[in-house]
Amino acid sequence: MARGANETRLVSLFAANVRRLRKERGLSQEELAEAAGVHRTYVGMIERGEKNVTIYNIERIAVALGVRPGSLLD
Amino acid sequence: MARGANETRLVSLFAANVRRLRKERGLSQEELAEAAGVHRTYVGMIERGEKNVTIYNIERIAVALGVRPGSLLD
Repeated sequence: MARGANETRLVSLFAANVRRLRKERGLSQEELAEAAGVHRTYVGMIERGEKNVTIYNIERIAVALGVRPGSLLD
Repeated sequence: MARGANETRLVSLFAANVRRLRKERGLSQEELAEAAGVHRTYVGMIERGEKNVTIYNIERIAVALGVRPGSLLD
């Protein structure tokens, strides 16, 4: 199934939110990955929009950034 | 990696939101699945909390329900 513009839009939005919030907190990608309990390269892939992230990892990233999970998709 | 309470909490929250919004709109699970372009049994699995849904499918379900994707995780 080809990815619609809608779907890639949300992945890009999520990527931009994670990057912005991480930088606001002065965290490196590795530090955020460690705090979220994901592989250290995973945050980089998220921020490049390469990952179709699942709810579990949205939650882990949101907890590590101290934000509501839903806010990462707005 | 065992799933933490946090993560299953968000899957359950997403499941409850999808079910509530679907019923508010008088849609069957099959009708919502068709509108979202997912397999007709997928919505049932989502609503039973059996699916660790990805951003793509969060988006499809949100569009089909006419809500912001982030609102399904709040």
